[in-house]
Amino acid sequence: MAGNSFGKLFKLTTFGESHGRAIGGIIDGCPAGIKLDFEAIQREMNRRKPGQSKIVTQRKEPDEVEFYSGIFEGQTTGTPIGFLIHNTNQKSKDYSHIKDVYRPSHADYTYDQKYGVRDYRGGGRSSARETASRVVAGAIAKQFINQVNINAFTSSVGDIFIDKPYQDLDFSKIEDNAIRCPDAATAEKMIAKVTEIKKQGDTIGGTITCVIQNVPAGLGEPVFDKLHAELGKAMLSINAVKGFEYGSGFCGARMKGSDHNDKFNEDGSTQTNLSGGVQGGISNGMDIYFRVAFKPVATTLQKQETINSSGETVEMQGKGRHDPCVVPRAVPIVEAMAALVIADYMLLRRTETTKW
Amino acid sequence: MAGNSFGKLFKLTTFGESHGRAIGGIIDGCPAGIKLDFEAIQREMNRRKPGQSKIVTQRKEPDEVEFYSGIFEGQTTGTPIGFLIHNTNQKSKDYSHIKDVYRPSHADYTYDQKYGVRDYRGGGRSSARETASRVVAGAIAKQFINQVNINAFTSSVGDIFIDKPYQDLDFSKIEDNAIRCPDAATAEKMIAKVTEIKKQGDTIGGTITCVIQNVPAGLGEPVFDKLHAELGKAMLSINAVKGFEYGSGFCGARMKGSDHNDKFNEDGSTQTNLSGGVQGGISNGMDIYFRVAFKPVATTLQKQETINSSGETVEMQGKGRHDPCVVPRAVPIVEAMAALVIADYMLLRRTETTKW
Amino acid sequence: MAGNSFGKLFKLTTFGESHGRAIGGIIDGCPAGIKLDFEAIQREMNRRKPGQSKIVTQRKEPDEVEFYSGIFEGQTTGTPIGFLIHNTNQKSKDYSHIKDVYRPSHADYTYDQKYGVRDYRGGGRSSARETASRVVAGAIAKQFINQVNINAFTSSVGDIFIDKPYQDLDFSKIEDNAIRCPDAATAEKMIAKVTEIKKQGDTIGGTITCVIQNVPAGLGEPVFDKLHAELGKAMLSINAVKGFEYGSGFCGARMKGSDHNDKFNEDGSTQTNLSGGVQGGISNGMDIYFRVAFKPVATTLQKQETINSSGETVEMQGKGRHDPCVVPRAVPIVEAMAALVIADYMLLRRTETTKW
Amino acid sequence: MAGNSFGKLFKLTTFGESHGRAIGGIIDGCPAGIKLDFEAIQREMNRRKPGQSKIVTQRKEPDEVEFYSGIFEGQTTGTPIGFLIHNTNQKSKDYSHIKDVYRPSHADYTYDQKYGVRDYRGGGRSSARETASRVVAGAIAKQFINQVNINAFTSSVGDIFIDKPYQDLDFSKIEDNAIRCPDAATAEKMIAKVTEIKKQGDTIGGTITCVIQNVPAGLGEPVFDKLHAELGKAMLSINAVKGFEYGSGFCGARMKGSDHNDKFNEDGSTQTNLSGGVQGGISNGMDIYFRVAFKPVATTLQKQETINSSGETVEMQGKGRHDPCVVPRAVPIVEAMAALVIADYMLLRRTETTKW
Repeated sequence: MAGNSFGKLFKLTTFGESHGRAIGGIIDGCPAGIKLDFEAIQREMNRRKPGQSKIVTQRKEPDEVEFYSGIFEGQTTGTPIGFLIHNTNQKSKDYSHIKDVYRPSHADYTYDQKYGVRDYRGGGRSSARETASRVVAGAIAKQFINQVNINAFTSSVGDIFIDKPYQDLDFSKIEDNAIRCPDAATAEKMIAKVTEIKKQGDTIGGTITCVIQNVPAGLGEPVFDKLHAELGKAMLSINAVKGFEYGSGFCGARMKGSDHNDKFNEDGSTQTNLSGGVQGGISNGMDIYFRVAFKPVATTLQKQETINSSGETVEMQGKGRHDPCVVPRAVPIVEAMAALVIADYMLLRRTETTKW
Repeated sequence: MAGNSFGKLFKLTTFGESHGRAIGGIIDGCPAGIKLDFEAIQREMNRRKPGQSKIVTQRKEPDEVEFYSGIFEGQTTGTPIGFLIHNTNQKSKDYSHIKDVYRPSHADYTYDQKYGVRDYRGGGRSSARETASRVVAGAIAKQFINQVNINAFTSSVGDIFIDKPYQDLDFSKIEDNAIRCPDAATAEKMIAKVTEIKKQGDTIGGTITCVIQNVPAGLGEPVFDKLHAELGKAMLSINAVKGFEYGSGFCGARMKGSDHNDKFNEDGSTQTNLSGGVQGGISNGMDIYFRVAFKPVATTLQKQETINSSGETVEMQGKGRHDPCVVPRAVPIVEAMAALVIADYMLLRRTETTKW
Repeated sequence: MAGNSFGKLFKLTTFGESHGRAIGGIIDGCPAGIKLDFEAIQREMNRRKPGQSKIVTQRKEPDEVEFYSGIFEGQTTGTPIGFLIHNTNQKSKDYSHIKDVYRPSHADYTYDQKYGVRDYRGGGRSSARETASRVVAGAIAKQFINQVNINAFTSSVGDIFIDKPYQDLDFSKIEDNAIRCPDAATAEKMIAKVTEIKKQGDTIGGTITCVIQNVPAGLGEPVFDKLHAELGKAMLSINAVKGFEYGSGFCGARMKGSDHNDKFNEDGSTQTNLSGGVQGGISNGMDIYFRVAFKPVATTLQKQETINSSGETVEMQGKGRHDPCVVPRAVPIVEAMAALVIADYMLLRRTETTKW
Repeated sequence: MAGNSFGKLFKLTTFGESHGRAIGGIIDGCPAGIKLDFEAIQREMNRRKPGQSKIVTQRKEPDEVEFYSGIFEGQTTGTPIGFLIHNTNQKSKDYSHIKDVYRPSHADYTYDQKYGVRDYRGGGRSSARETASRVVAGAIAKQFINQVNINAFTSSVGDIFIDKPYQDLDFSKIEDNAIRCPDAATAEKMIAKVTEIKKQGDTIGGTITCVIQNVPAGLGEPVFDKLHAELGKAMLSINAVKGFEYGSGFCGARMKGSDHNDKFNEDGSTQTNLSGGVQGGISNGMDIYFRVAFKPVATTLQKQETINSSGETVEMQGKGRHDPCVVPRAVPIVEAMAALVIADYMLLRRTETTKW
């Protein structure tokens, strides 16, 4: 209920605050018999971790995962997988200056309103540090659904957009640059933009596009738990996300039915894919693609006026090492959440017919 | 699991196909002691029902709700509320021509792929008829959270947008016109557009904006079940929805942090509200507002080529009485789903502190 | 949350009070493609219904089920199955004498304490009438798991016990007598006992034994949701149940390990079965058997002193047509709940390995 | 789904195998603002841990809990509480002799059937070591519901029973002896019995009685999630449990209604309490009491014939340090599970009326 779990059958529960001793989680419902590639898991962690390039925060966290259970001789056993990631970099002192201060557009105020108790160290539970646990679980989910390909990439930073459809992009180039944009020329402009913004002590928003390929038809629950509804929730649960659209998305709302309908080929595939791979909440076997909007990081290094918990106006200035743009580090998180949704619905699908 | 339930504590489960005898549902977890206004429930049903104006489908369904339990002497008792809405208009013959046909951009194909069994009568479970049950539950939820105001309205049809911020609109005028747009001049243009599209036998998409006012601070679960994530899922679960954004939304992804942050007033309210009333997944007491994109209805009255279940190309033409634009009838559905989310999180909030 | 649902994947939600217009429910998660035998469903309903013999209540309820959805051309479609059972016999007047009275050992007092609102008509939601919906769902579950055999029978009434192990009983004789005891001589004594008790205006308790045969090994979740724990909860959720034991049960608590362990045969079966078909919460392929204790019905026809809602002492006397012993009518309810548990765990089992 | 979580609102999820590096869990939904007494938590751990007396296993595990999150400055924050208990004593070699062997009346065979993968080290996930995590969570639950008193004690070992009603026992004496029986004379006999059984290399069963006092009226969900049904499930989920009865229990099944009904006093309390504090699944404010049956431990130190995973007959002999009787160490586990149920239903109760 308290919302620290995700998934129905392939279920992740996470714990941990940014400046506690460790964060971690439990993956429950991962099928038995999956041989895990631990290097692949760490590779995903490294894509998310701070300090990996000049345009992300310079904090240092090795982000190594320790597994405690559910794995025996390199294979999942069907029992819950408990894991921990130590916080090696928790300098609580860094945050003493904001102990009583409500930072603008942060969760400080709302946590205080909700719980009446606030762990003020670096955002506590509201920090995106929690997403490291999601990346662990997503990396395992990816190995379970290894026939499915999930690729996310930065599709815009501020006003700089990729101007090609995803079909014209080479996903193998996503990791070639620090911003994780597969189009080299656009990537360069994006990096220049982030570098400039960073110099100003400011931050900037962006969008991530995610494409899920080779999904079998038939995934998704038709009414409240439509496949795209769960993907939407998964994405909206990531820190700083403000919007989600799939297939034709907001553009589709401007179209006519005669233009929007996807004609069938005789094999059941469709000639266009404005539907985005989902009909009536159920996958149709075509590519699933969606776009996620991230706001600019709220912590800037510029002076701001705000209030403290006594309602007094105070001046504050972000210190420390923050991301000027979350988007590049959010790419593996988007993929992880997508993997968790697909893994969950793959399991659910097994339960729905008499033929299996 | 099969996704016919929504909500954790205030929980709706629905059943029913468009052309069965009846649809209905069970509301479980509605607190005891709410005196119900049955006319208000019927009023919401009437806003959603077909045949209410010239720009919606001319089918006739009285959509009267029969309650079977959970209410005694006009008051909720705390036990589950079972209800039924009879389908008075189920002409199965109307649909025999599509028995083996997969209509483009409908759920015919995906249901068949998923279940291997297809109730071909009028879309069966994938029909938006199911949303009538949501409106019943939403109307009861609204009465439970009666201090909260929820107003949805049509904010665009095709390329016709309201060009004012919601603060400049008078929500009391939403019901003044058939398209449910509170700005009279824009409404007129929208209605003209839908009328024209209808004449062409075509359909058109649109967007709905929803504003939730007077929500207490502290609603929402901080990690996976963020308030806006659940609102997003709720909206994406409505038929024909392709996108969801709240607060600054996709525009926010183009902004700088220094422009995006909402400055606090000394009472904890904020001067701007790009956050959209939610910080870190928790309501902050400001207005919550979001926008939902609806694609054009897939059933047009124009001839289309498609395939049947044997993979043969066939020609089909939509018959019958379909909506040229779903948006006006979707307005009460958006409100209903929003009410269900807020009611659920209001109950959840009671469980989270030692002070209550 | 409010506890009107049972099951995880094969899920029943019920609604309805004993003296409302109807009771009913929704079965969600029933796999698609099951051809239903509606007569078999009605047969189970008839086993539970009042008025079927001289030793049960003489109320008349035809208990016919109306299905509204989830079934097309006699087959389940994978969508939720909504159903209704009308209450044809609701004489609210019968209960006006107990409007303000808390009947001893009934739920009148606790409902009032819990909800502050009481539907006093015949027990409302606390009436065993609700179990008719369970029998509908259980009958469908039985058809889904048709390779499994579930047989419950009356194993004691008051101090009259069957003195044979279940292996020596012929389950085909369960329906041969009104008390549902497969041993004819014991059945006769039990019926005589109930007849005598009924003449006294009194009631009597009893036990039901249930044997589940041909269950595949591997059902059950090892920790909190052990197969026998869920069976126990299912049984304890039936009205009037006071105890549950499986395998060696309470006798096992008096034994030594050297006597209690079940030796394996080379095919993995065991020579004895004190374990009751479950090891570590998981079925081992042997018979699962358990025993359920039912208290005597609280409503007697004798005069009793009690209190009313103002805390005043009043005299009351049960009227109407009550069961002198619930056990014979509870036999199909025990089977129904067992079937729901097994169906649910059969579905769950599909999700647990990479091989399927 | 995979059954490693317990509770709805106050929810524990556990992970860990007996011979992995650590076990642990996450408590989600614990309200904010509880000042924790960490010594009280450790005290409960010490009651469960091995090596505490001569009649329990002589393994040594300090069983110290490390908390990682959800607690700040000694107080719960409302965010999930992650914790770990290191396995200091995992000697995997001890178990190599049973690698391919299915021990009689253990879960070896069923795990293999279920998952096709077996962590053979000391029972893996099926070991009662997992219950250490339950004791952590139960100790915190007790602090949340500190007005409620929960006392469990050993009520029988083999054929030695306490012959007094619980009302005549002094719960403060439970910890006075190694068997946890508050009646000194009976305790002595029980300890002698266990000592004798241990010398034989054998094991013996027993029962635990638990009394929950000062529970407010109104806890429990009336239909499937009756308070006693959830307590029953909680108890049946503990390793080695074979039966559960509450109030009059199996004895009640032999009684007449005129003897079984509990007469009300004018304040709503009852003169007798055969109901066991629950009516219609809802607490009535009287003492809740129940009895739990534990089978004898399956691991004896005597030679036994059994089979291995190839279906061959092999001889085996338990080695190592096992409990001759689980009952004394299970007392704190029974209390912990009871505390988790009561805490959960206390939270749920807050959501059920309009008055709070």
